[in-house]
Amino acid sequence: MPQSNLWFTELQNENLSIGLRIEKTLHSEVTPYQTLDVYETKQYGRLLVLDGCVMTTDKDEFVYHEMLSHVPMHTHPNPKNVLVVGGGDGGIIREVIKHPSVERAVLAEIDGAVVEASKKYFPQIAAGLSDPRVDVQIVDGIKYVEDHPDTFDVILIDSTDPIGPAVGLFSKKFYESVFRALKSDGVMAAQTESPFVNQELIQNVMRDVRGTFPISQLYLAHVPTYPTGMWSFTMGSKVHRPQDVQTCRVQNTRYYNAQVHHASLALPQFVKELVES
Amino acid sequence: MPQSNLWFTELQNENLSIGLRIEKTLHSEVTPYQTLDVYETKQYGRLLVLDGCVMTTDKDEFVYHEMLSHVPMHTHPNPKNVLVVGGGDGGIIREVIKHPSVERAVLAEIDGAVVEASKKYFPQIAAGLSDPRVDVQIVDGIKYVEDHPDTFDVILIDSTDPIGPAVGLFSKKFYESVFRALKSDGVMAAQTESPFVNQELIQNVMRDVRGTFPISQLYLAHVPTYPTGMWSFTMGSKVHRPQDVQTCRVQNTRYYNAQVHHASLALPQFVKELVES
Amino acid sequence: MPQSNLWFTELQNENLSIGLRIEKTLHSEVTPYQTLDVYETKQYGRLLVLDGCVMTTDKDEFVYHEMLSHVPMHTHPNPKNVLVVGGGDGGIIREVIKHPSVERAVLAEIDGAVVEASKKYFPQIAAGLSDPRVDVQIVDGIKYVEDHPDTFDVILIDSTDPIGPAVGLFSKKFYESVFRALKSDGVMAAQTESPFVNQELIQNVMRDVRGTFPISQLYLAHVPTYPTGMWSFTMGSKVHRPQDVQTCRVQNTRYYNAQVHHASLALPQFVKELVES
Amino acid sequence: MPQSNLWFTELQNENLSIGLRIEKTLHSEVTPYQTLDVYETKQYGRLLVLDGCVMTTDKDEFVYHEMLSHVPMHTHPNPKNVLVVGGGDGGIIREVIKHPSVERAVLAEIDGAVVEASKKYFPQIAAGLSDPRVDVQIVDGIKYVEDHPDTFDVILIDSTDPIGPAVGLFSKKFYESVFRALKSDGVMAAQTESPFVNQELIQNVMRDVRGTFPISQLYLAHVPTYPTGMWSFTMGSKVHRPQDVQTCRVQNTRYYNAQVHHASLALPQFVKELVES
Repeated sequence: MPQSNLWFTELQNENLSIGLRIEKTLHSEVTPYQTLDVYETKQYGRLLVLDGCVMTTDKDEFVYHEMLSHVPMHTHPNPKNVLVVGGGDGGIIREVIKHPSVERAVLAEIDGAVVEASKKYFPQIAAGLSDPRVDVQIVDGIKYVEDHPDTFDVILIDSTDPIGPAVGLFSKKFYESVFRALKSDGVMAAQTESPFVNQELIQNVMRDVRGTFPISQLYLAHVPTYPTGMWSFTMGSKVHRPQDVQTCRVQNTRYYNAQVHHASLALPQFVKELVES
Repeated sequence: MPQSNLWFTELQNENLSIGLRIEKTLHSEVTPYQTLDVYETKQYGRLLVLDGCVMTTDKDEFVYHEMLSHVPMHTHPNPKNVLVVGGGDGGIIREVIKHPSVERAVLAEIDGAVVEASKKYFPQIAAGLSDPRVDVQIVDGIKYVEDHPDTFDVILIDSTDPIGPAVGLFSKKFYESVFRALKSDGVMAAQTESPFVNQELIQNVMRDVRGTFPISQLYLAHVPTYPTGMWSFTMGSKVHRPQDVQTCRVQNTRYYNAQVHHASLALPQFVKELVES
Repeated sequence: MPQSNLWFTELQNENLSIGLRIEKTLHSEVTPYQTLDVYETKQYGRLLVLDGCVMTTDKDEFVYHEMLSHVPMHTHPNPKNVLVVGGGDGGIIREVIKHPSVERAVLAEIDGAVVEASKKYFPQIAAGLSDPRVDVQIVDGIKYVEDHPDTFDVILIDSTDPIGPAVGLFSKKFYESVFRALKSDGVMAAQTESPFVNQELIQNVMRDVRGTFPISQLYLAHVPTYPTGMWSFTMGSKVHRPQDVQTCRVQNTRYYNAQVHHASLALPQFVKELVES
Repeated sequence: MPQSNLWFTELQNENLSIGLRIEKTLHSEVTPYQTLDVYETKQYGRLLVLDGCVMTTDKDEFVYHEMLSHVPMHTHPNPKNVLVVGGGDGGIIREVIKHPSVERAVLAEIDGAVVEASKKYFPQIAAGLSDPRVDVQIVDGIKYVEDHPDTFDVILIDSTDPIGPAVGLFSKKFYESVFRALKSDGVMAAQTESPFVNQELIQNVMRDVRGTFPISQLYLAHVPTYPTGMWSFTMGSKVHRPQDVQTCRVQNTRYYNAQVHHASLALPQFVKELVES
């Protein structure tokens, strides 16, 4: 029986692409901020695409969502107030509220259409958004951070790629603003692309975070649907060190555990040299 | 200026593909065992393709070659005699002979055309093949292993995917033969595909290696040009434990270091459950 | 604003492909006979795909439907009873009943799902199916032809490619059966692929039709979505010659006219040599 | 045996692509005017690509070269002096000098690299360039035409697509210049893209040619490797009518013959309406 020959292709950069066989289109929309598509893939289940870039899939979303959240959340000894900038699909929020200490988690997403599409097409990712501790704000995250000094224990920056609406989320000015929005022992983390293709970006972010926070740390995870599959996150912390984490405080994870926490901090030699240079 | 629109596509499975923009073809050959192509890519430099599958590229070869070799080589306290099965490009041999203890390294490659193509098009990968300690044998690796009982300290299985000529390298019979070819404290490791797509293969190999060697261990590395980017290796050891490694004994690595050694052993929760089930 | 990167690719043969950007999937089904997909394309409007092959599109369907029907229909001076074998989308029927002389048009389509999908997604193609003169039969066309000797003035064979269910429609036995099902001055025509890629098929069909009918003729049209864009049709006739057509008897055509009728019979030198050899 | 998975893709427009499986790259060059690539394809033999667009292939070049040349060349009763603007591969020249009446054929090609690459990689296309009647000029064709009033019997415009260096070849100013460069009974023809995708261009060119020459005519041919496969040419003539051609004056053609000459002038209804509107 012949296969459907319908493929979604992401040109990850001008020389590299990934292709996913598609069973059907579920949704296509031009929001005020970006294009938004939802596809049913054969390999990874449902796929969320913003401006032509893979955002998340049913089958591998757990890696990114667990690792952007649990590494900094565990680094803080007692996170009560958490802010997620971006992350409208709800995956980061879902992980954040697994921490029993969390009293309030704010989602500051600029594009309400992402939240709606996630609720409809990715109910298991969006599940946490209806938790009573969660406050979904459809606002400009940059402005929200500026307006809330000394408020949060942890801030997680779940942005799209550093083009279009997300450019401002990769600037020193923004990290300084995040620093002010954090309490005196706060921790932040941001997704910062692939060390195999985005060396310059990673170096710039590390320089900016290092210039802002007393403690900084790049860490890594395997995200199959992102370019090269090796994904980096950058953490900034005022007091607490990620190396000091002893135990895993959350259950029902599929990627994160205490060993993986520490393994993610061990950088391959070329990445180590990249961030130390 | 318009880009060349020449792309190499690997259908990694029937639902997933990777595409690399090609600058030019350098070599195409049908050997007695497989098709062999060498391309110049924009993203990763030169690319070696066997039977349509990406084998190695200039830019990311170091990950696979360092991780398949140095994790087991360091696990053995004093490796003198080493066998590489497959690996005709020479990358594993190049890493093996970085270990000062090595006295003899045999390459048992079935397809001499791979060795020749590597010498011509990937001189920096093939460099080690001309070292006086290296013995290149164009032979059937399965037979070679059977014929050399109690001979090697470390055996590394650098095979193509488990289809075609490499099928026999993924069988319990072969691992038992490897066990016999190892000395009384020998260590082996094999490349064993991606935990995101080859779960059944990994479980079968782990079951077979666990049934053959007292000590077994899956470990991971980020290889951008292999499916999903998360690649697994399976180690079998008679006496020595990979967890006991203290220091890095080699220099000039770009991925491996002592921290990465231990990090590679820390398995994400779903992989842990996969190999423990 | 980034484009959707969803593409339908037809591998027209193992060395040639056509790609169409897709807006959305409308329908996917595995019928008892074949896979059936309906897509919304950017270039050609809606697209009907059977077993992975482009069947028809909103924007270029008129060429194939007008040319398979009107050239033989005009060759017959007074077609009253017409049979369409295959053609479940209804496009050929729609053209057939433009001829005022037609009293009855039978559609013998093996796969009812094609008729249903066409009615739903291609209403302007399927429109003729509800005409009172039209008799839609969901039957095996080969058997239907065998069972109706001396019945039709014109028989039109609107088949898929000569693989799978349509193989029997490209055999001498079938053309002989068609000959018997035609009245004493009947005319038949069949779609017979591209002279640029299917030379052997065209030669075989021409030999078989020439061996069955006193008058035979290959003719051509431009169908953008079929391989190479140059498409052939083979006509067999008991008495009437396509060269004798004087005027166009139908209105509202977009491709066919009296000049195009004769132009379609003028074969490029290499096609002439192909069918005369 | 697995197939090479190397494909050349031409994005014919943003919604439509053609793919050709490539055996190897033969040449890649950035000339002062454009990129130039030569590939060995499986389907069509060697392929010449300028600025990412298919120019010609071994297997189907005869259609375009015969039809751009022989239709206007036969329209002129006795062509002695002929100018080809563009056409550096030599295919048009090769056809022009098949006419026994031709005394001199000038090739005015702006990019000498095209001529050199054709001589090396497409010797059977370039063959005519060494004929003693042929004068190859590496010059700006627009300027050359301006500088040679009342000189030629036939001018053939073998341009690339109307972007980049070829834009000026699709302007009314240029057609007027061509008119002046022709003798009092001269004939011109230009390639003018596909009626299925370039309707506006064709209407503009027809309006301009009709406003410049007493006699104008669009005609068609099947070129598999050009978008949609249906290709148009626009002829302008001072005195002679293409309809008056009686016999074919050249031998060894593979597409053109006297019947095809007239058939090419018969326009499908939608094309007729396009050029008459």
